[in-house]
Amino acid sequence: MALKPKSLLLRRPKNTKTVNQIPGTMTYVGRKESATTKLDVIDYNLENYERFTSTSTEDAFKFVDEDRITWFNIDGLSNVDEIKKLGEYYELHPLILEDIVNTGQRPKIEEYQDYLFIVSKMLYYRDGNIENEHISMIVGRNYLLTFQESDGDVFDSVRERLENARGRIRGRTADYLMFALLDSIIDNYFLVIDDISDRIETLESDLFTAKPQENITQEIQELKSTILRIRRSVFPLREVVGRLEKMENGLIKDSTINYIRDLHDHIVQISENIEIYREMVWGLMDLYMTTISNKMNEVMKVLTIMASIFIPLTFIAGIYGMNFEYIPELEWKYSYFVLWGIMIIIFLCMLYYFKRKKWL
Amino acid sequence: MALKPKSLLLRRPKNTKTVNQIPGTMTYVGRKESATTKLDVIDYNLENYERFTSTSTEDAFKFVDEDRITWFNIDGLSNVDEIKKLGEYYELHPLILEDIVNTGQRPKIEEYQDYLFIVSKMLYYRDGNIENEHISMIVGRNYLLTFQESDGDVFDSVRERLENARGRIRGRTADYLMFALLDSIIDNYFLVIDDISDRIETLESDLFTAKPQENITQEIQELKSTILRIRRSVFPLREVVGRLEKMENGLIKDSTINYIRDLHDHIVQISENIEIYREMVWGLMDLYMTTISNKMNEVMKVLTIMASIFIPLTFIAGIYGMNFEYIPELEWKYSYFVLWGIMIIIFLCMLYYFKRKKWL
Amino acid sequence: MALKPKSLLLRRPKNTKTVNQIPGTMTYVGRKESATTKLDVIDYNLENYERFTSTSTEDAFKFVDEDRITWFNIDGLSNVDEIKKLGEYYELHPLILEDIVNTGQRPKIEEYQDYLFIVSKMLYYRDGNIENEHISMIVGRNYLLTFQESDGDVFDSVRERLENARGRIRGRTADYLMFALLDSIIDNYFLVIDDISDRIETLESDLFTAKPQENITQEIQELKSTILRIRRSVFPLREVVGRLEKMENGLIKDSTINYIRDLHDHIVQISENIEIYREMVWGLMDLYMTTISNKMNEVMKVLTIMASIFIPLTFIAGIYGMNFEYIPELEWKYSYFVLWGIMIIIFLCMLYYFKRKKWL
Amino acid sequence: MALKPKSLLLRRPKNTKTVNQIPGTMTYVGRKESATTKLDVIDYNLENYERFTSTSTEDAFKFVDEDRITWFNIDGLSNVDEIKKLGEYYELHPLILEDIVNTGQRPKIEEYQDYLFIVSKMLYYRDGNIENEHISMIVGRNYLLTFQESDGDVFDSVRERLENARGRIRGRTADYLMFALLDSIIDNYFLVIDDISDRIETLESDLFTAKPQENITQEIQELKSTILRIRRSVFPLREVVGRLEKMENGLIKDSTINYIRDLHDHIVQISENIEIYREMVWGLMDLYMTTISNKMNEVMKVLTIMASIFIPLTFIAGIYGMNFEYIPELEWKYSYFVLWGIMIIIFLCMLYYFKRKKWL
Amino acid sequence: MALKPKSLLLRRPKNTKTVNQIPGTMTYVGRKESATTKLDVIDYNLENYERFTSTSTEDAFKFVDEDRITWFNIDGLSNVDEIKKLGEYYELHPLILEDIVNTGQRPKIEEYQDYLFIVSKMLYYRDGNIENEHISMIVGRNYLLTFQESDGDVFDSVRERLENARGRIRGRTADYLMFALLDSIIDNYFLVIDDISDRIETLESDLFTAKPQENITQEIQELKSTILRIRRSVFPLREVVGRLEKMENGLIKDSTINYIRDLHDHIVQISENIEIYREMVWGLMDLYMTTISNKMNEVMKVLTIMASIFIPLTFIAGIYGMNFEYIPELEWKYSYFVLWGIMIIIFLCMLYYFKRKKWL
Repeated sequence: MALKPKSLLLRRPKNTKTVNQIPGTMTYVGRKESATTKLDVIDYNLENYERFTSTSTEDAFKFVDEDRITWFNIDGLSNVDEIKKLGEYYELHPLILEDIVNTGQRPKIEEYQDYLFIVSKMLYYRDGNIENEHISMIVGRNYLLTFQESDGDVFDSVRERLENARGRIRGRTADYLMFALLDSIIDNYFLVIDDISDRIETLESDLFTAKPQENITQEIQELKSTILRIRRSVFPLREVVGRLEKMENGLIKDSTINYIRDLHDHIVQISENIEIYREMVWGLMDLYMTTISNKMNEVMKVLTIMASIFIPLTFIAGIYGMNFEYIPELEWKYSYFVLWGIMIIIFLCMLYYFKRKKWL
Repeated sequence: MALKPKSLLLRRPKNTKTVNQIPGTMTYVGRKESATTKLDVIDYNLENYERFTSTSTEDAFKFVDEDRITWFNIDGLSNVDEIKKLGEYYELHPLILEDIVNTGQRPKIEEYQDYLFIVSKMLYYRDGNIENEHISMIVGRNYLLTFQESDGDVFDSVRERLENARGRIRGRTADYLMFALLDSIIDNYFLVIDDISDRIETLESDLFTAKPQENITQEIQELKSTILRIRRSVFPLREVVGRLEKMENGLIKDSTINYIRDLHDHIVQISENIEIYREMVWGLMDLYMTTISNKMNEVMKVLTIMASIFIPLTFIAGIYGMNFEYIPELEWKYSYFVLWGIMIIIFLCMLYYFKRKKWL
Repeated sequence: MALKPKSLLLRRPKNTKTVNQIPGTMTYVGRKESATTKLDVIDYNLENYERFTSTSTEDAFKFVDEDRITWFNIDGLSNVDEIKKLGEYYELHPLILEDIVNTGQRPKIEEYQDYLFIVSKMLYYRDGNIENEHISMIVGRNYLLTFQESDGDVFDSVRERLENARGRIRGRTADYLMFALLDSIIDNYFLVIDDISDRIETLESDLFTAKPQENITQEIQELKSTILRIRRSVFPLREVVGRLEKMENGLIKDSTINYIRDLHDHIVQISENIEIYREMVWGLMDLYMTTISNKMNEVMKVLTIMASIFIPLTFIAGIYGMNFEYIPELEWKYSYFVLWGIMIIIFLCMLYYFKRKKWL
Repeated sequence: MALKPKSLLLRRPKNTKTVNQIPGTMTYVGRKESATTKLDVIDYNLENYERFTSTSTEDAFKFVDEDRITWFNIDGLSNVDEIKKLGEYYELHPLILEDIVNTGQRPKIEEYQDYLFIVSKMLYYRDGNIENEHISMIVGRNYLLTFQESDGDVFDSVRERLENARGRIRGRTADYLMFALLDSIIDNYFLVIDDISDRIETLESDLFTAKPQENITQEIQELKSTILRIRRSVFPLREVVGRLEKMENGLIKDSTINYIRDLHDHIVQISENIEIYREMVWGLMDLYMTTISNKMNEVMKVLTIMASIFIPLTFIAGIYGMNFEYIPELEWKYSYFVLWGIMIIIFLCMLYYFKRKKWL
Repeated sequence: MALKPKSLLLRRPKNTKTVNQIPGTMTYVGRKESATTKLDVIDYNLENYERFTSTSTEDAFKFVDEDRITWFNIDGLSNVDEIKKLGEYYELHPLILEDIVNTGQRPKIEEYQDYLFIVSKMLYYRDGNIENEHISMIVGRNYLLTFQESDGDVFDSVRERLENARGRIRGRTADYLMFALLDSIIDNYFLVIDDISDRIETLESDLFTAKPQENITQEIQELKSTILRIRRSVFPLREVVGRLEKMENGLIKDSTINYIRDLHDHIVQISENIEIYREMVWGLMDLYMTTISNKMNEVMKVLTIMASIFIPLTFIAGIYGMNFEYIPELEWKYSYFVLWGIMIIIFLCMLYYFKRKKWL
C-alpha cells in the first residue's frame, strides 16, 4: 500500500526529454503512455443530460452549445497531437498546452480573458497503490475541459450526480462543476493522509514490540519522503484554492464562492494534518534510536552480570588448579567444601550488588 | 489522565462517510452518537430569566422575542434532521449546517449579513480524561445558538451567572454572551496545559530516577502528539479571536471589544505556553538518550573493571596449572605465597589505575 | 543562583482560582501574599520634591496636583480592595484592574484616552536568587502609577536621581519617568542574561573535566527552560517598547522618543543574546552526548585490549594444563621457557597491533 | 560525478585580491584564467542570420544595426581590458563591469534606463563534473551581451534554433532571446538536481547493504554542502525571474511575460525539489546512525551469547581441575559423563533464554 | 587564530558599570582602555590634501571649512571627556555620545536633521587574532567623524587613496567617504568568513583522520559560538546598508547610491555564507558522533572476535584439565592431536562466520 516513491519523486523526467527543447513544445513526460486519447463528453443543463465518448477530440467541437454546460474529459496525454487540435479550437496559449502534458508542472492557477487554467494532482487508491496523476482544467463560461494522464479518476460521484440530477449540480454553471471536481480531488487526499496516519501508528507499535530490523528505518525514511512529496502536491493547491476564493472576474459566481471557501477549509485541514504527521514521523527516528539503545543496554547488562560473576569464580578455581608443590589449603580435608561456600557467598554478594543497581 | 489520541487525531473520519458526498450534505462524523437531540433554552434580559429544555428543536421557535436575549443550546449532533429544521428556521447556509455537524472542521469565524458563525473546540476534563468536543455558535442580534456533540460542557458558571444575575451578563447583549462562552472555553484550556506541564515535570524526574523502561519513550511520544493536537485547536482559535477583536459590523458592541481583547491576551498566553512545552518535550528525548548512555557507560565500566582485573590473574593461575615436567617455580616452597603477593600487587595497581581514571 | 523554575513556569495558577470567574474580577494569582498594601508617593517638579509612604491607597488622592508630577508606587497585590479603590478614583477599566493583579498576564501596552497601561516583568537578583515580579504602570499626563507584587524593586537609582535632582529627570514629564523605570527594568535584564552566559561557560568546562553525572543534563534542561521563560518576558516587552516608540498621542513627548529608541536598542540586544544563548545551550546536549560516547569508547578500548591479550594467552596455558596422557611437549625440558617466549611474542604483537590502530 | 566543493564554496577569493581595492575596479577572481577573450556575435532578424567570431571585442561595434537583434557572447573574463572597452562603448556603469568579472557576485537583476543587467550562474555537466560558471547578461532594446568565464555553455540549442529559424525565436526581440538563454540555464539545473536525487538514492541503499565505512558520512556531508551551494545559486535566481515577471519598463514585451511566468514555474519547482532533497539528506545522517547502532547491537549480542554460555561452563570445568586432595566427585566413575550432561543442559537453557529474548 | 570568545560574547559588561546610571551618561564599557584620545584629521578636496594628528579633540575645530571635506578620526574611547567636547561642538544628542562609547551597542543607523549616525563593528586580523572593534560614524554634509576603540583599523587603503588622489574619492563628498569606509569594513568580513571556512574544512578532515580527542568537540562548539557572534555583527549591518540604500534625504547623493547597492550585495553574500557555514558546523557534530560510533563498533568487533574464538577453545582445554579419575579420552594416545584438530576446525568455522558477517 506504499506510494511508489519513484513515480512521485521524478516530477520532471530524468532524461533530457524536455531539456533544451523550444519553449511551448508539447512533450508528455509522465510514465502513463497510452496509445489513444479518450474523449468523454457530458453535456447538460437543468432539463437535459447527454453523454458521449470518442477517441477523437475533434468529436468534441460539435457539442459547443450556448444553453448547456459541456464537460470534456480527455484521458491520455501521450498523444499530444489530439490535445493540440483541441487547444487550437479553444485558442489556448502554447504554454498552457505544454503544461497540460508536462506532468512535472506543480499545481497552479492562471487567469485568462475567457477562461481559467488550473493544474492539480489527483492522489487516489487503485489496486492498493496510491496513484499520483497530473490533471489540468480549463474552465470557460459554459464549458469545462479536464485533461488526465490515464483512465480512472475520482470523479465518478460527480458523474453520477450529473446523470441523476442529484444535488444542485445540474442547475449550476461550469464554475460549480469545477468546484465539484476539485472537491472530489481534495476529498481523496483525506483518504491518503488517513493511510499515512495508520502507517505512523503501525510503526510506533512496531518499534516497541518487534525485533530490531533494518526495514523499520527504511520504512520511516520512506514515510518521510512520502510526506514530503504529498506536501508538494497539497501546499501549492492550497494557494490555488485561496486564489480562487478571492477571484473577481465573472467566471466564478458569487454563489460558488461559499463552496470554494469550504474547499479552502478542507485543504487547510489537510495541510495541518500533514505538518503534524511530519513532526511525528521525524520523532519516530529518535524513538527508534532510544529503543535500540535500550536494547543494547539490556544486552550489555546480561554480559556484565555473567562475566562479573563467573570470571572471579573461575580465577579462584584456577588458583587451586595450580601445580605448586606446596599449597597448604590443598591438603586440608574440608578445603573443597569451604571453597564452595566462599564461592556461593561471592555469587550472592554479586547478585545483591546487581539487584541494588536495579540491573536485575 | 492521558488524552485519547485516537479521538483527537481523527478529526476527519477514517471511513468514506463524507468522501464523494454532495457538498452541503450534513453528516455527523464524530464518535459521540446520541439518539436524541436535547434543546436547552435560556431567555433573559436585565429583569427576566426563563429556562426551558426540550428534545425537539421546534420548541425553540416560540422563544424569539425582540426584547430578550435567547440562548439556544443544542446537545447531540448525530440527529441531523433536527438541526436542519433549526437551520431552515434561521435561514442558515447549507455549508454552515455541514460545518456544525462535521467535527473535523477546524476553528474558524465567518461573517454573514445578520449573524456570525464561529467554530471552536472545547477541551475539558470529564472523569479524569480530557474530552475534545466540537462546538459551533451562531451569534445574532438578540439570539445565540450553540451546537455541541454531547451533554456536558464548560458553561455551567455562565448559566449560574445568568440565573443569579451576577456580574454584567444579564444587562448585556448576545455578543457579550458569546464572549462569556468563549472565555469559559479558553479558561478550560489553561487547565489542560497545566496538566501537560505536570506531565512534563513528572517525566523529567522519572527520567533520572526510574529504571529505563520503554514506556517512558512511549509517554514522551504520546505527549508530543498531544501537544501537536492541542496546538491545532488553539492556533486557529487565536486567529478567530483576533478577527473578532477587529470586527466592525454592528454585531460586536464597542463595550464588548475590551473583553475580547482580554480574551486575545489569554489565548496568546496559552499559545506561548504550548510552544514552550513543545520545546521542553522535544528536549526530553535527548535527555532520555543521554540518561541511557550514561547507564550504559556505568554497565561497561563494571564489566571492564571486573574483566581487566581477573582475566590477567586467571592467566597467571593458568600458567602454574600447566603440566610441564620442568617448571622451576613449582618446586620452590614459597612460590605459592609469592604468587599471591604478586597477584595482590597487580590487583592494587589495577584499582589505582581505575581510580585515577575516575571510573570508581 | 538558579532561577526558581516553578515561580516562572506557573504564570497562570494551577488551581481554578480564575477559571470560570466573572471577567473583570480581580484575583491575585501570584505567590507573594502580603497582608498589607504599601503606598509610596513621590511628588516632584523641577523645584520641589516630596516623598510620603502609607498603607492606605486613599492617602494618594490628596497628592493630585496639576503643577507637579506624582509617582504612586503600590507594593503588594493580594489586597485587591485597596487597588480597586485606586482604580475607581482614576476611573480605570475593570479589565485593567484584573490585569494588574493577574501575574499571569504577559507584557503588553494599551492606549486609553487619558493614560497608557503597560504590563511588564521585573527580573532581578535578591539574596542570590532571581526574582520574577509582575509590574504594571499607568502613565497619565502628570501622574504615574506602578503596581508591584512585593517590596523591593529595581527603581532605587531612579528614586535617588529624583531626590537629588541628578540628570534631567526632575525637569521632565511623567512619560520620561516611565522611560526611566522601564530603563531600570531592562538594565536588570542584562544582569540576568550575564548570569546565564556564566552558567553556560561553567557547563561547557564541566562537560569536559567532570565525571559524568546526571546533574549536568539536569542543569542543561533547567537552563533550557530558564531561557525559554526569560524569552517569554523579554519578547513581548520588545513589542511594547517598539509600540511606545511609534506612539503618536500627546502622552509621549517628542523629547522622550529618542530615549525610548535607545531603550528599544537595548531590548533588541537582550533578545539577540537570548537567541544566541539558546542555540549554545541546545548545542550543549549534543556536546555532552559526544563526551559520554568518547568516554564509553575509552572504557571499551581498555576492556578490548585486556581481553584480547589475555584470553588467547590463558587458552594456551589451558592447553598445557590438560591431563592427556600423551602430550609430547610436556616432557621436553625447555617447553616451559619456550612457551613463555611464545607468549611474550604474542603479547608484543598484540601491543603493536593496538598501537597501530591508535588505541593506545 | 561529484561537484567540486572547492570551486563552489569559494565564491569570493581566499586571497586579498579584491579586499581594499577601489570600488568599481575590475578584478577577475575566478579560477578559469584564459589568456584570450573570445567574442562570438550572432546578428539576426526574421529573414537574416549572420555569425561571426573574433578575439577582439572591438570587432563587436560594427554590428550595431537597428533592424536586427545582435547577441554578443564573450568567453573569458580574466582579460579585463577587453571587457572594459566593451563597457565603455555601451556606457555601462563601472560597478556593472566589476560584477561581470567578480564571480563571487550572487544572481541579481538591475534595471537601468536603456538596459537590464542580469547576473546568474550556469550549472552544467562537462566531462562528468558539474561546472559552476558565472554568467552576466546585458539586455538592451536590440542587443544582448553575455559574459561567460570560459568556453562551453548550455546555449547550443538556442544557437541551433537561431541558425535554423526553428520555433519563434527569430521573429522575436532581444528580451525573448534573454528568456531563451535563462530557460536553457534553468533546464540544466534540472539535470543537476536529478543527479542529486540519484546520489541520495544510492546512499540510501548503500547505508543498509554496505559495510560501515567512513566514506558514507563523508559523502553525506559533501552532499549536504553541495545542496547548500546549489541553493545559493537557485534561490536568488528565483527572485530575479520573479522580478522579471513583474517588470514594467518597455524592455520586456508583454508576449514574453507568459514565457517568463513559465520560467518562474520551473525555478520554483527546482527550489521545492532542493528543499525536499535537503530534508532527505539531513535525515540520512540519522538513518546512518541507527544503522551503526543496529550493527553494534548485533556485535554485542554475539559477544554476550558466546560469553554467557562458555564462561559458566569454563568455571565448572575449572572447579574439577582443582588439585584439592579431597574432592568426592572426582572419584566417582560416572562423574565425567554426568558433568557433560549438566553442561549440555546449561547450554540448552541458555539457548532457550536467548531465543525467548529474541536475540537469536 | 581563534576568535577570543570572551571579548565578543560580552558585548555588554558583566559588571554594573552601566546598570542604573542616568540615560545619556557616557561610560566606556569595552576592554581597550587607553589613556589618551588620538585625533587624526584629513582635510581634502579635489585639489588639496592636508593631514594632521593631535591628542586633543579641540584641535579639530579649526578644520571646519566649507569648501573641503574633513574626516576626523578619533582613536580611544575611554577618555569620555574629549569625546563629549567634540559632541558639544557638533551639537550631538547625548544618546549618540552614549552609543559611541558603549561598545555593546549593535550596528544601527539613525537619521538626524544635519547628519547620519552609523554604528558598526570592525572585524579584522591583528597579530593572528581577530579583533572586534566598535566603530561609530557621524556623516555630515562636508565632514565625517569616526570613533574607534583603539589604534589600528581597516582604513589604510582609503587613506592611501585620499593621499594619492587615486580613484574617484577626492572628487566626491562625505557620503562617498562613508561608503568607502563601510566598504573597507565589509571587505574585511570576507577575510574573517574565509578563515571560518578554512577551519570547517580542517575540522572535517580532522574528524576522519585524527584520534578521537575531546578538543574536536570543543573546537566545534567554539566555532558555533564564533559564527553566532559574527552573525550578530553582520545581520544588523545588513539592515543598516539596506536603509542607506533607500535613504532620501540630501545627505546621500544619487551617484553614491549605486555604490551602496554594491555594498548591499556584498553584505548579503556574507550573510549567505555565514548561514551555510552555520549549517555545515551544526552538521559536524552529527558527523563526529557517527565517527565515534563507527570507532566503537570496530573496537567491539575486535573484542567479540577474540572472545568468541578463544572462550570456547579455553572451555574445551578446561574440560581436559579436569582431574576426574575416569575420563576415557585422556588415556587414548592420539587424543591430544585430535583435540588440536577439532580446535583448529572450530577456529576456522568462527573465522568463516565472522568473514560472512563482514566483520573481518
